Amino acid sequence: MMSRRATSLARLASSSSSRPSTLAQRRTLATVSSLFPNEPSAPSMVTEAVPGPKSKELSSNIGTFQENRAHGFVVDYAKSQGNWIADADGNVLLDMFAQIASIAIGYNNPDLLALAKTDEFITATMNRAALGSFPPTNWQELVETGLGQVRPKGLEQIFTAMCGSCANENAFKAAFMAYRARERGEQAQFTPDEMQSCMKNQAPGSPDLSILSFTSAFHGRLFGSLSATRSKAIHKLDIPSFNWPVVAWPDVKYPLSEHAKENAEAEKKSLAMVEEAIVNSNKAGSANGPVAAIIVEPIQSEGGDNHASPAFFQGLRDVTKKHGVYMIVDEVQTGVGATGAFWAHDKWNLTSPPDFVTFSKKMQAAGFYHNLDTRPSMPYRNYNTWMGDPTRTLQARQIIRTVQSHGLVEHTDNVGNYIYNALDDLIKNGAGKGKLERLRGQNAGTFIAFDGTTSEARDKLIMEMRKEGVHIGGCGDRAIRLRPMLVFEQKHADLFLERLEKVLQRV
Amino acid sequence: MMSRRATSLARLASSSSSRPSTLAQRRTLATVSSLFPNEPSAPSMVTEAVPGPKSKELSSNIGTFQENRAHGFVVDYAKSQGNWIADADGNVLLDMFAQIASIAIGYNNPDLLALAKTDEFITATMNRAALGSFPPTNWQELVETGLGQVRPKGLEQIFTAMCGSCANENAFKAAFMAYRARERGEQAQFTPDEMQSCMKNQAPGSPDLSILSFTSAFHGRLFGSLSATRSKAIHKLDIPSFNWPVVAWPDVKYPLSEHAKENAEAEKKSLAMVEEAIVNSNKAGSANGPVAAIIVEPIQSEGGDNHASPAFFQGLRDVTKKHGVYMIVDEVQTGVGATGAFWAHDKWNLTSPPDFVTFSKKMQAAGFYHNLDTRPSMPYRNYNTWMGDPTRTLQARQIIRTVQSHGLVEHTDNVGNYIYNALDDLIKNGAGKGKLERLRGQNAGTFIAFDGTTSEARDKLIMEMRKEGVHIGGCGDRAIRLRPMLVFEQKHADLFLERLEKVLQRV
Repeated sequence: MMSRRATSLARLASSSSSRPSTLAQRRTLATVSSLFPNEPSAPSMVTEAVPGPKSKELSSNIGTFQENRAHGFVVDYAKSQGNWIADADGNVLLDMFAQIASIAIGYNNPDLLALAKTDEFITATMNRAALGSFPPTNWQELVETGLGQVRPKGLEQIFTAMCGSCANENAFKAAFMAYRARERGEQAQFTPDEMQSCMKNQAPGSPDLSILSFTSAFHGRLFGSLSATRSKAIHKLDIPSFNWPVVAWPDVKYPLSEHAKENAEAEKKSLAMVEEAIVNSNKAGSANGPVAAIIVEPIQSEGGDNHASPAFFQGLRDVTKKHGVYMIVDEVQTGVGATGAFWAHDKWNLTSPPDFVTFSKKMQAAGFYHNLDTRPSMPYRNYNTWMGDPTRTLQARQIIRTVQSHGLVEHTDNVGNYIYNALDDLIKNGAGKGKLERLRGQNAGTFIAFDGTTSEARDKLIMEMRKEGVHIGGCGDRAIRLRPMLVFEQKHADLFLERLEKVLQRV
Repeated sequence: MMSRRATSLARLASSSSSRPSTLAQRRTLATVSSLFPNEPSAPSMVTEAVPGPKSKELSSNIGTFQENRAHGFVVDYAKSQGNWIADADGNVLLDMFAQIASIAIGYNNPDLLALAKTDEFITATMNRAALGSFPPTNWQELVETGLGQVRPKGLEQIFTAMCGSCANENAFKAAFMAYRARERGEQAQFTPDEMQSCMKNQAPGSPDLSILSFTSAFHGRLFGSLSATRSKAIHKLDIPSFNWPVVAWPDVKYPLSEHAKENAEAEKKSLAMVEEAIVNSNKAGSANGPVAAIIVEPIQSEGGDNHASPAFFQGLRDVTKKHGVYMIVDEVQTGVGATGAFWAHDKWNLTSPPDFVTFSKKMQAAGFYHNLDTRPSMPYRNYNTWMGDPTRTLQARQIIRTVQSHGLVEHTDNVGNYIYNALDDLIKNGAGKGKLERLRGQNAGTFIAFDGTTSEARDKLIMEMRKEGVHIGGCGDRAIRLRPMLVFEQKHADLFLERLEKVLQRV
């Protein structure tokens, strides 16, 4: 039979969206290749399975002082290169999981290695500023030439933080403050009752307001963000939570485009429940306090790669606007290009921007974009010692520059279409038939997922792919999520598709 | 009149604890001096006040995209050196605030600058690991030779995190999980009811358990940590909180040693209230859920530098042990040497160790120490993408090495005693009489504070000291807190004391 690569190429010859069609696009792809001229051309496996004995030993040593049961394998980062991850045993795998979707432009990217050697970087890293009170002289320039260059349309303000959970929680805080400011009137002072009751964690100073989120959502693991997270019981068990409302994610069918009509109905139903939950939250005797904000992922990631249409998100914007509820778009995992747009929500073409867009992971820096109307009324209200991290802000700037100068967003959109079409074919006509299902990620860059038939089948597939030298990750109950870096090319996609076909033929 | 330095020296000639008395101590002090041979010998002020015009302009520029009203001044970190901070206008000040107590071993410390240039550091920083799943090959060695070297007595396990708030919140989560595990029995599985109810944020899966904290406490600003924070209304207003109990910090008088008997009574009263709150929390119909843990700072910092005696903390350990409540010692600000012990709680000589010790700030890395009995029953329960930061872990190791090789903890204990005695004299017999009061920090290294007569007087003193080239910080309502670095020497102390005397004479 033809190799996976050959069959893919043959099948895709007639597909218009799968290959770069213009000269400019072809030029972009060539430029991407030049980033890592010495990348391996194939996996190199020296142990029968991963983790191998050396990984296991090192993991076991870590286990003496720290949880090690979630270890995949132990990594030799110095030897990792571009899309390729080297492990402790000397195996080299194609990495399509990328540190839980948090590496944007490849291991040991030369642009980042050069940054590390600059005086600016060393000064910022070894003299860590309390940014909210003693910012460095170059802070404005650093932010404006970095994070400021990728402001989501319509959002001017930038709050810097440290991780996805605290990005979301600080956005929650800003939303609560703005909501209460609007209730009490812009000019109003805090009442003595508010000042005193908040010190006892009681209303009216500590109001019973809530954040609405969706079933299967993942927004983080600290106490506020975990209260909005609904992905898995294991994330939530034994932890006290705020009594915040939840609405069912639209029960759509995949591939989305093949079920457009019934999906539109499902989304409409979900939107009606959102509106009902908001209205109910404002009634006396409601189980939840009033909904001040909703938070939503453009593609639910940890919860299983669940998608919805742009119309659904426009509907959310409409219902939140109608009821004076803030809309927080959690782009911690979807942001920074992987969906084929810099921000996944760019593809929605909203008629008015969200109120908050949060980020972390691939940006390395974390935080959120917003507008002046949600800047707190006074200083020190949304504040902490570090207020972000200059090291990671510098890294973010370089990542953004590399992404822009190499056209990595458009590149990822092209590569994503190529993979999606090949997988669609594999599942409908090839070795994936009956073994893989629910393909999603059409027009979503490389943010692609599919399900195994069971949780066990999925886990087995991941382990078998690892033996073949391809590192992929799971999410939800039985999904496999592809999370390659933005420097993932068609040649890597072909290698992945070949190995996947091979594994499917034997499992 | 004699200069401050001369008067200090004359007054202190007869004080036994104020000067290094042994040859070893003198050798230690000399070694500290050698760290920054080119440090300025005096402040250099080129603008009338700080912030100067350039600082104001840069701050105003930052204000276009980010909160700037909490800015003190804008800093030229490249030009800062050791204990000296250079601002945007070219002023050079003696820094006794140290980025809100988060710089341990001086600006542009040569040991840290050397670290920044190592391959190990560059690899770790530019290839950020998801530590909980794909740790680097050197992770065990890195932790054991760094954070592992300063394990609090009796605590073996190390959880790595990113900031003080998330260090505390992850400790809360570990405490809640361990508390419920004990309730349900070690071998018991989660019930279907727990699994389902937690997805709705409801008991029994999301139990109504609580963390007890003290009035004036500061434990962070995210939703769990903020629920335990009781420092100021401005930190808490408009943010929903857990209904967790609070107990009054002992109403002690300062200096502690001059009020030993009445302070013992005050501490006893507070301990009785702690026990009452725990007992009440376990009764049916309690306003709060059962207390799973208490959290306490060895010295309440943000809340005003409030102290208590070792006997008080031993009492807390006793009452928590008696009632099966976990004890979390929040050393985010007190840790890493500034109190004249590596951990402030080292000076308590507890009969059994606390269950958790949390850290951040001067360590640059964050997290907590604990024991196996509070490691969650399953992986992924206390987990997140990054699980700390290899960059900051490497920095922590170098900081610990520098602290140990230069004897900076003992050094800080000596310098602290020197400052404390001089201030005691200044307030009782000198220019501070009637203007400063409530001196605290005896036998607490350089963790020293005193009050102005009013909040305004305190703020004025801080601004006048800044004009004199000494940067100090406030806390609580009217306190000034000294937070010099561990490389702060007697010569710096003399300079501070001289300028303080000068300012007191004119305000």
